[in-house]
Amino acid sequence: MSHLVMQTDFGTGSLSVSAMHGVCAMVDPNLKVSDGNHAVVAFNVLDASDSLMYLYPYWPAGTVFVSVVDPGVGTSRRSCVAHLCTDQYIVTPDNGTLTYLKEAGLITEVREIDESVNRLKGSEDVHIFHGRDVYAYCGARLASGVISYEGVGPSYPVEEIVEADYIHPEKGENTISGMINEGDGHFGLVGTNIPYSWLGEMGVGYGDPLLVTVEHDGVLVFEQVIPHVKTFGYVEVGEPLIFSSETRTVMLAINQGNASKEYGIGFGPTWKMTLKKAD
Amino acid sequence: MSHLVMQTDFGTGSLSVSAMHGVCAMVDPNLKVSDGNHAVVAFNVLDASDSLMYLYPYWPAGTVFVSVVDPGVGTSRRSCVAHLCTDQYIVTPDNGTLTYLKEAGLITEVREIDESVNRLKGSEDVHIFHGRDVYAYCGARLASGVISYEGVGPSYPVEEIVEADYIHPEKGENTISGMINEGDGHFGLVGTNIPYSWLGEMGVGYGDPLLVTVEHDGVLVFEQVIPHVKTFGYVEVGEPLIFSSETRTVMLAINQGNASKEYGIGFGPTWKMTLKKAD
Amino acid sequence: MSHLVMQTDFGTGSLSVSAMHGVCAMVDPNLKVSDGNHAVVAFNVLDASDSLMYLYPYWPAGTVFVSVVDPGVGTSRRSCVAHLCTDQYIVTPDNGTLTYLKEAGLITEVREIDESVNRLKGSEDVHIFHGRDVYAYCGARLASGVISYEGVGPSYPVEEIVEADYIHPEKGENTISGMINEGDGHFGLVGTNIPYSWLGEMGVGYGDPLLVTVEHDGVLVFEQVIPHVKTFGYVEVGEPLIFSSETRTVMLAINQGNASKEYGIGFGPTWKMTLKKAD
Repeated sequence: MSHLVMQTDFGTGSLSVSAMHGVCAMVDPNLKVSDGNHAVVAFNVLDASDSLMYLYPYWPAGTVFVSVVDPGVGTSRRSCVAHLCTDQYIVTPDNGTLTYLKEAGLITEVREIDESVNRLKGSEDVHIFHGRDVYAYCGARLASGVISYEGVGPSYPVEEIVEADYIHPEKGENTISGMINEGDGHFGLVGTNIPYSWLGEMGVGYGDPLLVTVEHDGVLVFEQVIPHVKTFGYVEVGEPLIFSSETRTVMLAINQGNASKEYGIGFGPTWKMTLKKAD
Repeated sequence: MSHLVMQTDFGTGSLSVSAMHGVCAMVDPNLKVSDGNHAVVAFNVLDASDSLMYLYPYWPAGTVFVSVVDPGVGTSRRSCVAHLCTDQYIVTPDNGTLTYLKEAGLITEVREIDESVNRLKGSEDVHIFHGRDVYAYCGARLASGVISYEGVGPSYPVEEIVEADYIHPEKGENTISGMINEGDGHFGLVGTNIPYSWLGEMGVGYGDPLLVTVEHDGVLVFEQVIPHVKTFGYVEVGEPLIFSSETRTVMLAINQGNASKEYGIGFGPTWKMTLKKAD
Repeated sequence: MSHLVMQTDFGTGSLSVSAMHGVCAMVDPNLKVSDGNHAVVAFNVLDASDSLMYLYPYWPAGTVFVSVVDPGVGTSRRSCVAHLCTDQYIVTPDNGTLTYLKEAGLITEVREIDESVNRLKGSEDVHIFHGRDVYAYCGARLASGVISYEGVGPSYPVEEIVEADYIHPEKGENTISGMINEGDGHFGLVGTNIPYSWLGEMGVGYGDPLLVTVEHDGVLVFEQVIPHVKTFGYVEVGEPLIFSSETRTVMLAINQGNASKEYGIGFGPTWKMTLKKAD
């Protein structure tokens, strides 16, 4: 039997998550349900997409991800289940949550959830919690084998999957740039969607200084020369560093400090980082 | 084997919760233990009761809920296990946590925990953590079948179960009112104990405006005309709405905003909401 | 099959924790993985050590604890697995996290993780997340029986395990003192490493007043006479008490209040509490 992994923007400690777990237990008491991440930024489908990109390589084939970031709940957006080339599934509103997975070419098929079958009986008059009544319920039926993938509902073209706008990474001759897509509240890590390998392709090695600039809505808000190193411990406590994140993208941090807070750097489609070799 | 679902007011990320999980694993390594909600408002037995009302319909028959909101720990309040008509169990101090379940007529029987049997051996000199030493331990024994319900301890009259005071919902000719029992810190949802069906009985349909007033300790603190709609997406972002919660009670929110924070509305036995049809 | 219990300083709601769960599921889909505590104070190896001391007695023999507080990740500190006399295991960087377990004489053997075997394949170029790539992976292999303890890697002398500095508890003729090692953010409990039994040995009984002083970096910051009682409910709401923690150490609290916040008391190696019988 497969694992079901939940992510939501309900916040840690939400009672609603347990109702979703309970619905899974009612579908199959032996289903293995795990909490992926309930701290997705509220209403932020790109953050949900990023979170799925982060998780999928570390869960086995067959895993069913249930993602509930759903500001349009109860309106006409589609509810769907995407099938990945890794033989994993994502149950989600089709509202931009699948953006990065679609662009990475990971989605092999997508089906719209048939709510006449795959919705908790008796919940038809509840319009604000499809996470419980549709997504957890349908995901649990799929993960436990009550339904096959075909049983989800009718297929529709992958091209129709809704995408959200964002800043794509770009590689110039002497500079690389991309979107800041993470501002970890806990360690203050500033993550980007710039492939780490591009630093090497620009000839940047360990110890080399980089000129790092950050623009917010096109306005320069941060500029500093920062060394590129292997990991935190290669700079003093309190000093900044550029390094490879655990997903092999360019990341900015302060050793044992909080870069996003200390530098006032946010994240999302209005935040852009550019790096070039410092002289 | 049944599921054991824990709720406490220990806060998310409490180490103490893991000790409770470990005690369950010592009773039976195969017991399925799930975290229901560790963000119950500290010392607030009505919030604990509300949380149980929210969860029980979404967990299967046989589920054992362990609820630890216990400001009187180590004093003379009873420790008990209530049996519900859904064939579920609630292990809790008898301190008001069962208030709403008792009033709803859900409790068929209640037994006092016999600590000479159902207390972790060697814990007799610890007076501040019955959650671990009594409730988790006794709940795990019950959920795993080590003891039957009779094995909990002696039965006592359901009428003796301790109830906490609160504002009951009331239905007048043109107005309905009740207690605000939720002020979700994350989405800022303002929940009440007013049945949503009463709106329909007053002739209120989708799109109709309602005059919403909130009193704190009898003093008017909020008054506004707000539309009754199906779900968030039927008003603009930043606009308020009245709608049905996922438990079919009247709820107030701001679409993608935080109503409890923006309007300064709290919750508990001193907070009352009244609604009437606006002209 | 054994339980695997994780603790980290990643904060509650960290996505990274789910990647660690996923790695465990890839090693063995039936492994029982539980979250011990993800609110260890960031970079604080003594808090990690304290947390392990708190948990180990309440989990069964065979349990594998994976502890990831790792400010030196990617540098030359050892990665190890300690075996306890309780037949439990701790997978951790050898950076002070084992301090209290070593001093308590609980560690019977320690082995350095052989990363050529016990590291997630393909992760060799990632230098900042050994929690996922080394500790969760190696812990899951051990807990599921893929490797024996010998399969972890070569043994090294227990004496070589790194210890962090802290204030040891001391017992004088009329006073007892020790380190404040806990300042629970939620209930505001002020915990110490002073054995509770020492109060009895000084002739202090229930109801007796104690002169409690707190020094920070050697400077007196708090002094008050506080009663020694059995549990919270034996003083009025809002009043302080000295009592036995659930690990049988001396603890200070305010009944239904927050002692660490109200008294401005922190914790760690610069915070010392002293108690003597008040006249």
